[in-house]
Amino acid sequence: MKCRRCREPAVIDIRRHNAAFCRDCFRHHCHEQVRRAIDDFDMVEPGERILVAVSGGKDSLGLWQILRELGYDADGLYVGLGIGDYSDMSGSYAREFAAARGWPLLEVDLPGDFGFDVPTGSKAARRAPCSACGLSKRHVFNEAAIANGYGVLATGHNLDDEAAVLLGNVLRWETGYLGRQHPVLPAARGFARKVKPLVRLGERELAAYCVLADIDYIVEECPMAAGNRHLGYKEALNTIEERSPGTKAAFLFGFLERGHERFRGDAEDERADLGACRECGAPTPGDLCAFCRLRVRATGQPLPFLAEEAP
Amino acid sequence: MKCRRCREPAVIDIRRHNAAFCRDCFRHHCHEQVRRAIDDFDMVEPGERILVAVSGGKDSLGLWQILRELGYDADGLYVGLGIGDYSDMSGSYAREFAAARGWPLLEVDLPGDFGFDVPTGSKAARRAPCSACGLSKRHVFNEAAIANGYGVLATGHNLDDEAAVLLGNVLRWETGYLGRQHPVLPAARGFARKVKPLVRLGERELAAYCVLADIDYIVEECPMAAGNRHLGYKEALNTIEERSPGTKAAFLFGFLERGHERFRGDAEDERADLGACRECGAPTPGDLCAFCRLRVRATGQPLPFLAEEAP
Repeated sequence: MKCRRCREPAVIDIRRHNAAFCRDCFRHHCHEQVRRAIDDFDMVEPGERILVAVSGGKDSLGLWQILRELGYDADGLYVGLGIGDYSDMSGSYAREFAAARGWPLLEVDLPGDFGFDVPTGSKAARRAPCSACGLSKRHVFNEAAIANGYGVLATGHNLDDEAAVLLGNVLRWETGYLGRQHPVLPAARGFARKVKPLVRLGERELAAYCVLADIDYIVEECPMAAGNRHLGYKEALNTIEERSPGTKAAFLFGFLERGHERFRGDAEDERADLGACRECGAPTPGDLCAFCRLRVRATGQPLPFLAEEAP
Repeated sequence: MKCRRCREPAVIDIRRHNAAFCRDCFRHHCHEQVRRAIDDFDMVEPGERILVAVSGGKDSLGLWQILRELGYDADGLYVGLGIGDYSDMSGSYAREFAAARGWPLLEVDLPGDFGFDVPTGSKAARRAPCSACGLSKRHVFNEAAIANGYGVLATGHNLDDEAAVLLGNVLRWETGYLGRQHPVLPAARGFARKVKPLVRLGERELAAYCVLADIDYIVEECPMAAGNRHLGYKEALNTIEERSPGTKAAFLFGFLERGHERFRGDAEDERADLGACRECGAPTPGDLCAFCRLRVRATGQPLPFLAEEAP
């Protein structure tokens, strides 16, 4: 098996591209895929500062590394979710990665800064753990990007993640979610721009990238995610991909080319109806945003602003 | 486990309906699901004669039985595809079913009437067998319905079939196919109306219906279909359904309610561009329809009409 680019012996093959690469050319391939995603979808404006949400896993650390190697001004953000040993370990990986390179890492701690952790919040709000966690991360990421003056927030969602989310959205024909599913969510009042520069790279490519680039990452999956629907969708797509390589990429990019536009109005209608949360100012269709409602339930305490207002 | 309807002991449970039924009430349930599909989608006009395409399998024989029991004027159509023993056996089941009930069964034989069988046609045209077969059946079904004055052609596609086809169509975002995927394809110049009255019933329900209604059907699957993509999509959906009962029904009916309309224009554009095949008169975007092209390749002979025209 020879490298497609330089004809030296290859170390990895990518079936959906019908190509194999040596170590150096594989890193070049990953850089090119990220560069192309950023260019094709106009993710970053010249000179813009990027905040990369990092979990200590292969995707987010790989993304941060690639963005820096491509010359972007990218800093990290780690959010402690209070998921026992798993959070302790993932935080260590993120901190060691940043420290070894001397790159700035912002930190927010859900228990320390907001008074609750994901397991407690999910139980108190009777939400699935992944739902309470996703909601909290989206809120904290957005708030941190805006508060610290970053023009754009980048997350490590890869092709496998996005294809699995898309499958879940079409299985239920969630038209609002379909309208919002895009590698770039533009900035709006109260929202930083969100971008997913890894959409052209699969899970296996990210793992290989980290190994070949000597990036030490947390290999364990979050213990609370075991058996969730999203992993079921990933497995289903993996089974289909095994038989027909390229299915996941065709599914996601076919949607972006020929499907997404048809649902965009549904998402815009939802965004147009948003006001500001009376506690934190985040965009919300109601009085309190979903994160503040979760926080009230999880802590059993009135929120600071609401407490001041009480007679 | 008690019957939801009459509280007698149940013989089958349907997880997605969270219900169990005794023998009689299960047959009633199947009738109601077909009645509802026909009503909801305006499949049949009062007094209309229905031609049911039967293969000798559980779905099509079950459909014919249910339509007759609901009082419809429904006759059968069996198309011999020349797939060795499998076709011989499936034809016997269809004929015995019809003869035992004294119901008219039309027959068309691909080798006898058109000079080729599915295995030969698929090889000659370098098409996957299921592709050559589907194309031939669609053509012959449509021609038989029109030639024999039936207002509507009914096929035994069930919920599992339709959900798997839908999954294939969204995985590739085949916008024209998505626009055409509907339980009713209206009549048009050269096209009989096509309806799928079993869309509300799953594969397992049809098998149970046939067993409980003493319908003898061919259990073997077509040997040429083994390992095809469609079966892969069915397996993927079955794995997801196992974990979340109701996923398939929500996927198909969610599409019909909130997705289909957005793709209808793509299918209409395709239909608007059709002329008549110069050999058989069937609608086609080209000079010869796909069936006649297949026939030319498979038989290696000029077609009758074209042969007459030649100098």
